[in-house]
Formats: sequence, C-alpha cells, structure tokens
Amino acid sequence: MIDASRLAKDLGLAQLLLKDEGRNPTASFKDRASSVGVAHALQLGAKTIACASTGNAATSLAGHAALAGMPCVIFVPHTAPEPKLAQLLVFGATVIAVQGSYDQAYQLCSQACEKFGWYNRNCAINPVLVEGKKTGGLEIAEQSASFGGVPDWVAVSVGDGCTIAGIWKGLAEMHHLGVIDRLPRLLGVQAKGVAPIAYALKHGSMPAELQDAGTIADSINVAVPRNWRKAVKALKEAHGIVVSVDDDQILDAMRTGGRHGVYAEPAAAAALAGVKAATADGTLAKGGRVLAMITGSGLKDTRAAIRAGGEPIRIEPNLDTLAAALVGRGVTDGAG
Amino acid sequence: MIDASRLAKDLGLAQLLLKDEGRNPTASFKDRASSVGVAHALQLGAKTIACASTGNAATSLAGHAALAGMPCVIFVPHTAPEPKLAQLLVFGATVIAVQGSYDQAYQLCSQACEKFGWYNRNCAINPVLVEGKKTGGLEIAEQSASFGGVPDWVAVSVGDGCTIAGIWKGLAEMHHLGVIDRLPRLLGVQAKGVAPIAYALKHGSMPAELQDAGTIADSINVAVPRNWRKAVKALKEAHGIVVSVDDDQILDAMRTGGRHGVYAEPAAAAALAGVKAATADGTLAKGGRVLAMITGSGLKDTRAAIRAGGEPIRIEPNLDTLAAALVGRGVTDGAG
Repeated sequence: MIDASRLAKDLGLAQLLLKDEGRNPTASFKDRASSVGVAHALQLGAKTIACASTGNAATSLAGHAALAGMPCVIFVPHTAPEPKLAQLLVFGATVIAVQGSYDQAYQLCSQACEKFGWYNRNCAINPVLVEGKKTGGLEIAEQSASFGGVPDWVAVSVGDGCTIAGIWKGLAEMHHLGVIDRLPRLLGVQAKGVAPIAYALKHGSMPAELQDAGTIADSINVAVPRNWRKAVKALKEAHGIVVSVDDDQILDAMRTGGRHGVYAEPAAAAALAGVKAATADGTLAKGGRVLAMITGSGLKDTRAAIRAGGEPIRIEPNLDTLAAALVGRGVTDGAG
Repeated sequence: MIDASRLAKDLGLAQLLLKDEGRNPTASFKDRASSVGVAHALQLGAKTIACASTGNAATSLAGHAALAGMPCVIFVPHTAPEPKLAQLLVFGATVIAVQGSYDQAYQLCSQACEKFGWYNRNCAINPVLVEGKKTGGLEIAEQSASFGGVPDWVAVSVGDGCTIAGIWKGLAEMHHLGVIDRLPRLLGVQAKGVAPIAYALKHGSMPAELQDAGTIADSINVAVPRNWRKAVKALKEAHGIVVSVDDDQILDAMRTGGRHGVYAEPAAAAALAGVKAATADGTLAKGGRVLAMITGSGLKDTRAAIRAGGEPIRIEPNLDTLAAALVGRGVTDGAG
C-alpha cells in the first residue's frame, strides 16, 4: 500500500492510496484467485488443473500450480503473444495453442476438464475463486486502519467483472464482522469502447450491440463479460459508479503512477486514470480519500510502456552538451 | 523465501530455499541498494540523484527516486534496449542516451555528479549502498530461523561483486551480534566466459586477458568487475568457492525454477544453475542445506524466457485431437 501524498495533493484529494498488486508472486491480482484454486484442487484430490486464458489468470495459475507441483494445462488461442507463452512454458505448464478463437479455446478447455477430470480454474464457472479475490477487500479493510480508516472510494478497473465483485465481497464481510465501521463506494473503471458494464449498471442488461472497439488495456478488453451481473450487483450495493477512459488517459496514468514509484500495466493504470478523470469533472469530491487498486505490474506489458515512456535525451558524451540539454529540466538548478 | 522441497530431493539435498528478490518493488535485489541510496541522498539534502546503468540498478533507482519525489538522471549507452528505457521513462527519470560506450556513459555521469552536485548512486564509488545490500544477508539470517537455521551454503550469482559482498556483510554482522550461531559458506556463480572473479579468487588478481565472451545473463555480464577485491575478500572469509555455468545451464535453471514456481531472470537462474552443477559434481555434499538468491524476476528478460520456454502444443479445437496430443504427458492418466 503506497500513500501517494504528492499525487493526492495534485488531484485535490485528501488521500490517494495505491495498492500495488504487482508485488504478488506472479505480479498480478489474479494470484489471489489462483492460490485458492490450486489449494481447492489439492483438497479435492484433483491431479491436474486447467484454464483458458493468455493473461494474468493463466500466468498466475501456471505459477501456483508449479509451486504446488500440480500439472497444469493452459488453453490459449494460437494468436497468443510469444512472451506470454514463454512465461507459461517456463512455469512448466502444458500449453495448448488452439487453432481458433478464444471462445473455441475456452470451449475445448471446458470439454477437456469434464472428460479428463481436471479441476477447472475458469472464473466464469468456478464459484470458489471469489474467495481468493475477496482477500483484496479483506486487506483493504485491514490495511486502511493504518491510513486513517476506510477510504471514501475504492477504484478498480473492470473487465470480466469478477475482480470488483470479489473485492466488494471482502469489504462487505469485514463490515459485517465489525472490523470496519463503514463501507467505501466503488469506482469501476472501464475502457472507452469496451464498456458493457458501464452500460449494464445504467440499463440493467448487456448492450444490444457488441462494444468491441478495443483498448490498450488487454486485461480489461472484455466485450462480453461473463460476470456482469455480479459486478453490477456489487456496484449497486456500493453506491458505485463506472467511468470510462480512453487509451491516452491510460498511457498518461501509467506515467503518473510511474512518477510516484508504481509501475502499472495498462489495465491497472486505468483505475488511476479513472480517479484522475472523476476528480477532474467533480464526480469525486475534492478533499476525498481514495484507494486505487493497481492490479498488475508494468513489466507485464513492455509494448505499452514503450508507448507511455517517450524518448530519452540523445547526446554526445560531453559535459557542456549535457548541461545545455538539461536546461529547464529542474535537475541543474543550484549547480556547483 | 520458498522451500523448494521437491527440487531439493531431486538434487539430493536436505533443503533448498529460494529467496525470491523478484518480489521487491521494482523486481530485483537492487532495490535494497537504491532505497538506501535515495534515503541517504535525502538525508544529505541532495536535490537530484544519478547513476549510469541500463539494468536493474537503474530501474530500481528510478523507481525509488519517483517514490521519494526526487529528480533522477540515468546515463545509458545509446544501444540500451527500448523496453528498459521505457521503464525508466515511465518512472519519470531524465534518461541520457550517450552516443558512446558504457564506460563513456559512466564517465559522463561521474563528471555531471561533480559539476551539478548530484548524489552519485554508482556502486563502484558509493560506500553507503552496501548497507542496503547487506539487508539481504540480514534477512537470510532472520528468515532461516523458520527453516531449520542457517543453511550450509548461500548461492549468489556474481557480476560486479558488490551483491555477494553485501550479503556476506549482513550475514557476518548477524553472526557477530549473536543472532545466528554459525555462518554459511558462499557459492559464487559466474557465467562461463565472463568469470574474472573465479580467476581472482584463485590467483589474487584480475586475469591478464579480458574475459568477455558474453552470456545470456546480462546482469552478471561484467568483464571488469569494479568490486572484485570486495567479492574475493567475502568469498575467502566465507570459505567460499566460485563455479561457472554456461548459457544452456542457465536456461535449464530458468525452467527448473519455473517448474517450482519461481520465474527468474537469467542472472538469477544462474545461482540455481550453480547449485545444480555443484551438487552434480559433488562440490556440494549430498544431504546439505542450500539457499539460492533469486536476484531478479523473469519478467525483466522476456527474450531469454522465450529461449528457455520452448514451444506450445498446436492443435485444432477438437477433443480427440487434444487427447491424442496429451498421451504420455502425465495429465490424462486416470481420465474419466
């Protein structure tokens, strides 16, 4: 948990906490679900665990299965990027690259789980995983005691809907148990162009027309969220709102996070982008206390970081050239 | 700290602990030095902090400086890979790409620190950073109490020599203070072809001829270590030895670590490769207790992971095809 006090001041907030889930074992929030999934599979005596995904869910499953010494099968569409495949393969997962769409990979995974008796770690159908995801909410409740109590808002980027619902479950349980005396509101953040849950919160249903304009934030690039009802239920209980941000805002938030010491992948930076947008337009009141979930490490998406990073200063190895290049950059003031 | 009990058994060891430094804020051991460097710079009232590097030292400095709100200048040779530059730039560092060699970047950094009054975080000349690095040794002493006490060996990959010397300082202090009742031996691991410290331990000097055959493990690809005397002193005090491993052994160790839940960059996997080599040839006695420092996350070097990972199984989306492809892979035994 990082108290980004300078950034809070810039945004007119009393407090801005960044909860850095990039510090988890495979560098994303999904480790919380995968650790519970693997533990549950062991408890049931399953010999193999499987899921369909190329993203953080797959990586975290492969890592936790390796730690437990349990064979793991990951189904990915054949278009999955090589770096993500490499990580799965280094973890020793059996990786099945399906010559077809993500949906076909998902279907084949489901059929194989049934046929071979594998444990199925797909969030869409596994009700146990939320018990892992809720630990994010439990921790917010626990840790916020050291930062002046429960924040007014918890900001979470939303793709499938499972993460925000899980965090809310943990918060609600801590409230029910009396550990915290009040609940925060939820700020869901979606990508502009892929924001079906923003629509569903307003209209109570999925949009009639598919929203699949795409986003740089691959982890929330979900046009057909499988848990939208769960997400909408959590948002309603939490008097929540959903804001949408575009790729430029996400890249800008990657830089903002970085400049305060947190290297976030695009979907994680989206939560921060949502906070920035919502404070700028007054949706989040000035003087409020906000926590943003940074759901995955920037190391997960180097291509996006290159887009966010900009260019270095290129110079010859000469001190005078350097001094000239640094004028106005705030690092040579009061030079000796 | 991960108790890799299955792997220990495979290697004939009583215990193998993996200390995963990839969980640090910017995902490497170097965070320990940079956090102390930034704290020291703040204490001295410095306004800007600088170093020359493209690797984990630079990233960790940029991240910790961002967290502290202190401007930071990083000097890199112009050939530095774009992903590493991107991370520095996202952290908000002023990145100077010098049209010259690493040595020229290093020299320009030193001159600029002197001219502009910047705090210099180069390990080669900064005596304070070891106080950060030694925390690795302090933690080994502290944490090993939960794992049956001080291990017989601590394995560390060696580049500049500063890390192994720092870890030893921490261990020796904990022994001096009576927190631990004995000291481990040190197993230094270098890359074959770039192993000047292996030479120096034997001969008491740097090799006459430059050893720069290169290695996949960029973080220990140091032909002219600036702290070789410190490393040799630590190794001698620790009754240590140095083994050398080639790229194939390093890639193999990346897979081995992954299969036990630890995703390591090549230089980190090198420590594990050294343990494997030294147990195989009897240098490390069977039944011993060993700790290997995993000094950086595999997410730092995707290119190496692709080399280590191998290929997925490519199939059509069909259950029978899948079943056929999985024969003999240990995941369909006892299929339903």
